[in-house]
Amino acid sequence: MEFTASQIANFINGRIIGDEHALITGVSPIESGEEGHLSFVAQERFAEHIDRSKCSVLIVSEKLLTEKTYQPTIIAVEDAYLAFQVLMNLYQEMQGRKSGIEDGAVFHESASVGENVYVGAFTCVSEKVKIGDGSQIYPQVFIGKNVKIGKNCVLYSGVRVYDYCVIGDNCIIHSNTVIGSDGFGFQPTKDGYQKIPQLGNVILEDHVEIGSNCSIDRGTIGSTVIGKGTKIDNLIQIAHNVKIGQNNVIAAQAGIAGSTVIGDWNQIGGQVGIVGHIQIGNQVKIQAQSGVNSNTKDGEILYGSPAINAGEYRRNYVHFRNFTDIVKRINNLELNSKDKTNE
Amino acid sequence: MEFTASQIANFINGRIIGDEHALITGVSPIESGEEGHLSFVAQERFAEHIDRSKCSVLIVSEKLLTEKTYQPTIIAVEDAYLAFQVLMNLYQEMQGRKSGIEDGAVFHESASVGENVYVGAFTCVSEKVKIGDGSQIYPQVFIGKNVKIGKNCVLYSGVRVYDYCVIGDNCIIHSNTVIGSDGFGFQPTKDGYQKIPQLGNVILEDHVEIGSNCSIDRGTIGSTVIGKGTKIDNLIQIAHNVKIGQNNVIAAQAGIAGSTVIGDWNQIGGQVGIVGHIQIGNQVKIQAQSGVNSNTKDGEILYGSPAINAGEYRRNYVHFRNFTDIVKRINNLELNSKDKTNE
Amino acid sequence: MEFTASQIANFINGRIIGDEHALITGVSPIESGEEGHLSFVAQERFAEHIDRSKCSVLIVSEKLLTEKTYQPTIIAVEDAYLAFQVLMNLYQEMQGRKSGIEDGAVFHESASVGENVYVGAFTCVSEKVKIGDGSQIYPQVFIGKNVKIGKNCVLYSGVRVYDYCVIGDNCIIHSNTVIGSDGFGFQPTKDGYQKIPQLGNVILEDHVEIGSNCSIDRGTIGSTVIGKGTKIDNLIQIAHNVKIGQNNVIAAQAGIAGSTVIGDWNQIGGQVGIVGHIQIGNQVKIQAQSGVNSNTKDGEILYGSPAINAGEYRRNYVHFRNFTDIVKRINNLELNSKDKTNE
Repeated sequence: MEFTASQIANFINGRIIGDEHALITGVSPIESGEEGHLSFVAQERFAEHIDRSKCSVLIVSEKLLTEKTYQPTIIAVEDAYLAFQVLMNLYQEMQGRKSGIEDGAVFHESASVGENVYVGAFTCVSEKVKIGDGSQIYPQVFIGKNVKIGKNCVLYSGVRVYDYCVIGDNCIIHSNTVIGSDGFGFQPTKDGYQKIPQLGNVILEDHVEIGSNCSIDRGTIGSTVIGKGTKIDNLIQIAHNVKIGQNNVIAAQAGIAGSTVIGDWNQIGGQVGIVGHIQIGNQVKIQAQSGVNSNTKDGEILYGSPAINAGEYRRNYVHFRNFTDIVKRINNLELNSKDKTNE
Repeated sequence: MEFTASQIANFINGRIIGDEHALITGVSPIESGEEGHLSFVAQERFAEHIDRSKCSVLIVSEKLLTEKTYQPTIIAVEDAYLAFQVLMNLYQEMQGRKSGIEDGAVFHESASVGENVYVGAFTCVSEKVKIGDGSQIYPQVFIGKNVKIGKNCVLYSGVRVYDYCVIGDNCIIHSNTVIGSDGFGFQPTKDGYQKIPQLGNVILEDHVEIGSNCSIDRGTIGSTVIGKGTKIDNLIQIAHNVKIGQNNVIAAQAGIAGSTVIGDWNQIGGQVGIVGHIQIGNQVKIQAQSGVNSNTKDGEILYGSPAINAGEYRRNYVHFRNFTDIVKRINNLELNSKDKTNE
Repeated sequence: MEFTASQIANFINGRIIGDEHALITGVSPIESGEEGHLSFVAQERFAEHIDRSKCSVLIVSEKLLTEKTYQPTIIAVEDAYLAFQVLMNLYQEMQGRKSGIEDGAVFHESASVGENVYVGAFTCVSEKVKIGDGSQIYPQVFIGKNVKIGKNCVLYSGVRVYDYCVIGDNCIIHSNTVIGSDGFGFQPTKDGYQKIPQLGNVILEDHVEIGSNCSIDRGTIGSTVIGKGTKIDNLIQIAHNVKIGQNNVIAAQAGIAGSTVIGDWNQIGGQVGIVGHIQIGNQVKIQAQSGVNSNTKDGEILYGSPAINAGEYRRNYVHFRNFTDIVKRINNLELNSKDKTNE
């Protein structure tokens, strides 16, 4: 990264206060700015940093500017947060995507790839795999047979995709996530557990992002489905036959048990557990560490294990915290009651 | 997969109602049948699908059949669920297992493999490793020195087995699971934590299945052991020196801390935590998200964190849900009591 | 491993009782000793094993010795536990570290490595990577561009380090851990979630150890930092922008949400969740499965979800366990009260 203040101001349509030739070679958070770096101030509570920052260039929201000059070079814009995001997105796109098949990738002759596809070293692409235009498969990835991967996907190093899984367009899958491992299905017999074959697959629709070290199990017969635009954090368990709708966000270490159906626009907190075979509506919020064990309606906010209405949980938890006092009050009441009886 | 109705009927000893030449090329869940697919109906509550399904062929339990003909071709059997399982198992076996060492696998000269072993590309087999007949080691697996793997095992892509670990016969280990990483053992000193060497290993007995992204740590001196027939889901932590008996099922994201001993035929729910150095009996059921911090006897059913008898937990939790009302009742009692005192 | 009793006695400055030529080829836990193995007895409660052990040689604390001779050969020392640790550390160092670049590693020409570095097969070392003297990179590791790895580190098979991350000296990272995957940052729009670029990195300071299958996300703009001497178990989530101080121990399956700041010498239990944007002091102990949702002061001991003072939580939980009885007492009080009113 190497830009001048005026180049940056051009990208985001900003007004320069200071040195238009100021050079930046990196970005810093505002609290720990470094010389030669760019940062931004979009909120009143960070305004004190504007004149003090060691950064060479700051993007600042107009409304926060009160002086004529500042120590760093300022690029004034209407919304500094938005402008910074735009800039960072631009920067990432400018980085360019790799293309070509690196030496050392193993490629089955029946596999087919689109244009501008990158496949890294030590990646295995099995028979009949299809990879769409512009997709980037990093080194050391495993792609099982008959897998379909859409356009402009990124699969980072160490991702494993089992046979027959389907990945839509514009999906991102981070390192060491496993797509399509066997669902946990066994039939008890008196001699032990008998494996139930897991013959389905996993379908990720378009614009799905999955973090690192997740496990998304294949369906028993049909598909485990993750809907369009749903974003999944790290270390998450999605069991077999789960159907997740569109635009959900699921935080790290959550787990969803088998055959549960989840609607759209839900927010599922970290370390949440959802039991199998239930239905979660739309726009539900589930607080971190909750355990959901029954159907939920649209718009509910849940907390606790088992999860109940979050407001109710919090009120009850306040009483739980005072439980020792409450028991003392009951003791007193009993004493009084006895006293009265003895009177 | 391509079979006719009569081929399938033969496999499972069924009676055809309809077109014995009906061709199937896949399987579907009954709720979302597809033309050319096979499904099954074994329960009354799915019987409505029998005549409506888009599947070309259905396996149906005799007792659910009331009509002379149906829209799809029917294969009537006594127990459709069982017949379907048998068929799917047959199908999986027919798929055949790969054999041979693929180009690009690294194989130490002192390693030895049995007959019909498959080792995929970019897999490392270290010195003195032994792999039994019929085992399948997928690409990109790491097998440390002196590891022993039994017969007919499957290790999927990205599995890591550290030095000296032992895997029995007929074990299945899914992608990116780690067998034998160091136990979490450190001695505090005033300058920081000093690592305690972890010199033991992990032993998986026969017929163990482990899901994806699990961590099974090696023993400090002796072995971490997972007993015969125990099945472990995804993202599970088994700490050093843990001993797990036979035929347990452990659901996703559970964690078992160091040196705990677990008996046979237990059911451990998702996201359960079990502290170190305790004993779990046999046929214990632990509800999801529970935290077990003391020894348990055979047959106990546990819930909560810390876990108590599950029925007791549920009853108390009902009161917890009503806690605000309960406190109001106490307030009233106190008011009454004061009133009386003031009378 | 092959040593005589007298060699071992020399290493740890011990006194032999028995056969100084006794040969040992392995180590066992004292409860399950094997012939030809070494073990130790440091505590009174294991003293019964001294004369009965099948081990050929035992290291025993002087104060536990009461007889003139024993069945196994004894090496008497002041503190058997300490002596055994010293010995095991010596042994591990004697094993030697590998060095050299194995065939099949991919090495960018702009990468540079120090002396006595080992890089295993199928490992990718990207452009401008620097690896310090004596570091050991196992097979099948991915190291992104501009990554810096210090001296004497060990990265086990399957570790992934994304671009620009920095690893200090003497760090150990176990298999399939991911360093530097994207933080979970999205902006909601009416059409779905828009990805916020994650342009920062991860910094591990010196003497950090991280278990297997962990996810440490990169900072959004700045760095996610894990301080000197901090030890992290398996399957742990560290979100973007988290700052962890020195000498913390974090047990398996814990998760720390974005931008939280953690001090020094804390003990964080298994499956603990810590919300984002809070501050944890120093020498705090957080019990397993707790959910911490507010700032904590130095020395606090926390338990529960949400976490409160651990002693308080335990006392209240005793009442929770008796909740049914407590409600009966309230019922009785109400009955009495009514009786009195009716009197």
